[in-house]
Amino acid sequence: MKAVRLFEYNQQPKVTEIDDPKITGPHDVIVRIGGAGLCRTDLHIIEGQWVEKSGVTLPYTLGHENAGWVHAIGSAVSNVAVGDTVIVHPLITCGLCRACRAGDDMHCSNSAFPGISIDGGMATFLKTTARAVVKLNPSLAPKDIAALADAGLTAYHAVKKAAAILYPGTKAVVIGAGGLGHIGIQCLKALTPAEIIVVDRSAEALALTRSMGADHTVVANGKQVDTVKDITNGQGAEVIIDFVGEGGAIEDGVAMLRRAGSYYVIGYGGRINVPTIDIISTEINFIGNLVGTYNDLDELMTLTAQGKVTLHTAMYPLDAALDAIHDLDHGKIRGRGILIP
Amino acid sequence: MKAVRLFEYNQQPKVTEIDDPKITGPHDVIVRIGGAGLCRTDLHIIEGQWVEKSGVTLPYTLGHENAGWVHAIGSAVSNVAVGDTVIVHPLITCGLCRACRAGDDMHCSNSAFPGISIDGGMATFLKTTARAVVKLNPSLAPKDIAALADAGLTAYHAVKKAAAILYPGTKAVVIGAGGLGHIGIQCLKALTPAEIIVVDRSAEALALTRSMGADHTVVANGKQVDTVKDITNGQGAEVIIDFVGEGGAIEDGVAMLRRAGSYYVIGYGGRINVPTIDIISTEINFIGNLVGTYNDLDELMTLTAQGKVTLHTAMYPLDAALDAIHDLDHGKIRGRGILIP
Amino acid sequence: MKAVRLFEYNQQPKVTEIDDPKITGPHDVIVRIGGAGLCRTDLHIIEGQWVEKSGVTLPYTLGHENAGWVHAIGSAVSNVAVGDTVIVHPLITCGLCRACRAGDDMHCSNSAFPGISIDGGMATFLKTTARAVVKLNPSLAPKDIAALADAGLTAYHAVKKAAAILYPGTKAVVIGAGGLGHIGIQCLKALTPAEIIVVDRSAEALALTRSMGADHTVVANGKQVDTVKDITNGQGAEVIIDFVGEGGAIEDGVAMLRRAGSYYVIGYGGRINVPTIDIISTEINFIGNLVGTYNDLDELMTLTAQGKVTLHTAMYPLDAALDAIHDLDHGKIRGRGILIP
Amino acid sequence: MKAVRLFEYNQQPKVTEIDDPKITGPHDVIVRIGGAGLCRTDLHIIEGQWVEKSGVTLPYTLGHENAGWVHAIGSAVSNVAVGDTVIVHPLITCGLCRACRAGDDMHCSNSAFPGISIDGGMATFLKTTARAVVKLNPSLAPKDIAALADAGLTAYHAVKKAAAILYPGTKAVVIGAGGLGHIGIQCLKALTPAEIIVVDRSAEALALTRSMGADHTVVANGKQVDTVKDITNGQGAEVIIDFVGEGGAIEDGVAMLRRAGSYYVIGYGGRINVPTIDIISTEINFIGNLVGTYNDLDELMTLTAQGKVTLHTAMYPLDAALDAIHDLDHGKIRGRGILIP
Repeated sequence: MKAVRLFEYNQQPKVTEIDDPKITGPHDVIVRIGGAGLCRTDLHIIEGQWVEKSGVTLPYTLGHENAGWVHAIGSAVSNVAVGDTVIVHPLITCGLCRACRAGDDMHCSNSAFPGISIDGGMATFLKTTARAVVKLNPSLAPKDIAALADAGLTAYHAVKKAAAILYPGTKAVVIGAGGLGHIGIQCLKALTPAEIIVVDRSAEALALTRSMGADHTVVANGKQVDTVKDITNGQGAEVIIDFVGEGGAIEDGVAMLRRAGSYYVIGYGGRINVPTIDIISTEINFIGNLVGTYNDLDELMTLTAQGKVTLHTAMYPLDAALDAIHDLDHGKIRGRGILIP
Repeated sequence: MKAVRLFEYNQQPKVTEIDDPKITGPHDVIVRIGGAGLCRTDLHIIEGQWVEKSGVTLPYTLGHENAGWVHAIGSAVSNVAVGDTVIVHPLITCGLCRACRAGDDMHCSNSAFPGISIDGGMATFLKTTARAVVKLNPSLAPKDIAALADAGLTAYHAVKKAAAILYPGTKAVVIGAGGLGHIGIQCLKALTPAEIIVVDRSAEALALTRSMGADHTVVANGKQVDTVKDITNGQGAEVIIDFVGEGGAIEDGVAMLRRAGSYYVIGYGGRINVPTIDIISTEINFIGNLVGTYNDLDELMTLTAQGKVTLHTAMYPLDAALDAIHDLDHGKIRGRGILIP
Repeated sequence: MKAVRLFEYNQQPKVTEIDDPKITGPHDVIVRIGGAGLCRTDLHIIEGQWVEKSGVTLPYTLGHENAGWVHAIGSAVSNVAVGDTVIVHPLITCGLCRACRAGDDMHCSNSAFPGISIDGGMATFLKTTARAVVKLNPSLAPKDIAALADAGLTAYHAVKKAAAILYPGTKAVVIGAGGLGHIGIQCLKALTPAEIIVVDRSAEALALTRSMGADHTVVANGKQVDTVKDITNGQGAEVIIDFVGEGGAIEDGVAMLRRAGSYYVIGYGGRINVPTIDIISTEINFIGNLVGTYNDLDELMTLTAQGKVTLHTAMYPLDAALDAIHDLDHGKIRGRGILIP
Repeated sequence: MKAVRLFEYNQQPKVTEIDDPKITGPHDVIVRIGGAGLCRTDLHIIEGQWVEKSGVTLPYTLGHENAGWVHAIGSAVSNVAVGDTVIVHPLITCGLCRACRAGDDMHCSNSAFPGISIDGGMATFLKTTARAVVKLNPSLAPKDIAALADAGLTAYHAVKKAAAILYPGTKAVVIGAGGLGHIGIQCLKALTPAEIIVVDRSAEALALTRSMGADHTVVANGKQVDTVKDITNGQGAEVIIDFVGEGGAIEDGVAMLRRAGSYYVIGYGGRINVPTIDIISTEINFIGNLVGTYNDLDELMTLTAQGKVTLHTAMYPLDAALDAIHDLDHGKIRGRGILIP
């Protein structure tokens, strides 16, 4: 089959031919890929940012945002059948450890992460397991929703945590109006009564968010902190959801945070660097976010089916993977890039 | 009356004579001080760390940890009477804003903080209001429990937040076995089934914590992170409660934190400085903590009355305030220093 | 001034002249009533259902749902000024007890309940205190929002509790499409992503709820339990919000409840009567609801200002109070009856 | 093998010979029973109370409280090996449905309940699955801890839910000082700072609870409600944990409940029968409880290993099962009856 494989860090991956995956265990599920999302994390992997954390051996196949149709199943798989339309939870989990049993799949103590630590889904087929597949209505096209498997899930997971403190009258700042930001805004709208303030450098990207539920849009033109302070009566916002996590975004976000507020870290690349006296004198919190649970993904699929979350995508044939990577790296993709085998 | 007043930053305060406070509003309460706790924050104030945050005009009276007996009350005060033994919640709050009504007194939008932003309790008398006084059993001696008003309250407040995620089998690391640490350990024991690991540079301080409920004590001798990792089966602890917040304590604490764990910031002086990729790849949280609510203080008084929390204190006459400050600054006080008018 | 006063149980109240209330304490606030809501509880009071619980001495003035303008204030009132438009939280609370400090105003240990236990607002003026008045935008007309002070608050309070367990894909059944039901549906829509199923005897009342956010409407024609079971794939709903609480509503509601579901009791008159084996074998919960907190009322006012909650009301002059009571008793009021002095 | 099997409702079960269970699926685990707890529910099953709820076909083997050693495993079992000491979670669950993934094993949509709906563990061997076995330290004797598998788990589960509202100064009433009550008291002590009040008819049973952590013991002599009211300053308790659930226990428990309090239903047989006006005017809750999660059982095993929970048991050979049933039915067992094959 075809696959987009990384052979060396700091070099572009290649589209090559490899063997098809085989069913080897009773819970294995092989998915014929209908769409594989391209993510900024793929760029970070290529740059070597994940070398130590992933521990993967090169070469391997990229792609951690996958949807398609069930192609083959192991002997003990009962929850899906060949031909079913599925979206793939990014983690392969054991179902037996405390984290799995508590619903915190992403902290499974025996997990694998296709596309990060083992072969992923930028290929004709992806091998995963029964616990990772969410069965969908066959009317859904995998290419249209693949990006929800990771980008969407991560945004939903963070918003769901934030929702617990967002009551009527509170304000949530979304930093970054890109692919994740779009989903985050729609999830905030669906789950909370908060007023939504979106901050981005691009007036064009901001304009698009108005139709998704943004109540206020703020161009990051150097005065964004003051503007958010004005919108929040000088107090700052109860919640900051930071989809950027680098550049000046973090310093801005902290400055926009209200006393007793919470800062949700999703984007990465930079550092949280704050004096402890500032943390204790205002009692603020920094909350990490890592993809989401299987149930989170199932809930997000419900919102999608209800029309509450929609995606802007840019389709590329799998063979054009390098073009897609180039476009992402140069800020030329509106919405989420999807590779189609 | 006598008062310990700060006239200039970076100079020692002086014990001087000033006018007694007077009742001017219907809710005013004047407390005759039985004991005023000395806190590391007093040293930080003298050093000027709080200049901007407090906005106080010098000279003023230090002392934000106070207990005593009601000396005079305003016309509308109904919850205490002259002669009642009371401990004083550190904040003067309005009772009308959203934070007060939600129980988050420390985020009152119209608050004053005696000893930080207005005259405090290192004096014969302290002026506060009806909302700030917790009535105590007259058998309690103010000098014995004064340090619970702020140090104890802060430790209790953080532990109470952490308790929500500490189930049987979890582990909590307490960094710092000083005054706050002692109270924190006892509160963890009273409120949670967690195993308690205490880290400190002083073997002597650690020995003392064994009788308070520490399950493991770890000398900070350079190998403390490895030792905590060993105790936690290589995973790290679900909760870090950091009463130090400077020096290498923060880096150590972050390294001791388990995936999905939470780091409670109480001590201050240093910085939280962590790459966002580390925060998101393990989904860890940093939780700020600022004193506590009136109800927290009331609950802590219950634990004290039940004998579950006890304090080690070192008594000084108010006239010897400068000796006490000197001793604190030079690490010569075991437990908490208390000034007695 | 004029007032609607109850002189004897099981007899209609009378519109009579009594003395105007006077400011006697530093926190007193006298409100000139712009609208006083008429509630089924007023009928229950007249019938004597509340004799023991209220402990009130007859005669007294009815009316526990009030809004208007500040007419006079005590010497220590700082949060409102004469002329301000206000809605009145139904309870007079102390602000000093644990419940008040925890935000649970309705469990204040020193409370009074105008219209239930002391003179209420079906009158020219109402005497309450500074802690009970929520200042509103002067553009709001008290008669248009008075019914939110108790009916609306109660619905909001219950929905807010239920919201914590309503994630995408869950279903909430609202029993009763009257005044409270209308508000409940709108609050569910604003606060949760749940699908809303409304059950009522009146097809006409149900039709009205479609525009408020009802996803399914079910006529209580004897087959309502089966219909709800069908809508919920045979499982029942995660949440039942029962605004009726008598007749067959309770038995129906329990039968519509999913395993591990929660039943929110708001309407009253009947009994919860369920075998304990049914409660434990499905692990269901029954959750009581009593008005709401001051902050709840403030949040509901935010939703109203945002246009997310609107009310259907039927206006009556105060002099026509008995007509309004008659109409309510005979099911002739659409929406909420409001008396206007 | 030998097994205690029920052939007809309202007749005593018989100890008979049946075939040994066989491994048929990849996740099957066969446990050689070391101890099987006898529970009041076994009496209820014999009496036919569970006919409809269990849907079991007679004859079948009783026994839903089991511990022992792994005897045989299916091909895909990786978490235990033959010879391991295990306690058996009472439910066989799928690990794929939403409830399993959320940690709510007892609401698994594809579950079986050995001893209730299929063959149980009052036998030489029990057939269960990999997801149901908790591996224990081999030093633990199955007969000593078997009763924790259901009775203990149920008590722990309820206490864990109650713990969230039990802060210092609150009071919890435990109704019933039998086997479950003993465990409940110890769990309350381990998990909460609440004062514990135990109510039972037997002064002897009460005396035993003092050493387990009971702060107050109240003989149910007709004045128990008044006594609890006295202990709680006339307010009632924040939490009632009812291990009896029949007779006058429920009416007593409701009368002992404080405003805004919660009543945890565990024992069954009677009915919750309360006017809705009482539920709403005090805002009380009734919380159902059904065994507990796998993680709950693991946590309870931790408390047991830490010595915080111990059991009183009465051992019977499996052949003497009918004697044990007779003794339980006639109130002659102190602690929990355990059958040993």
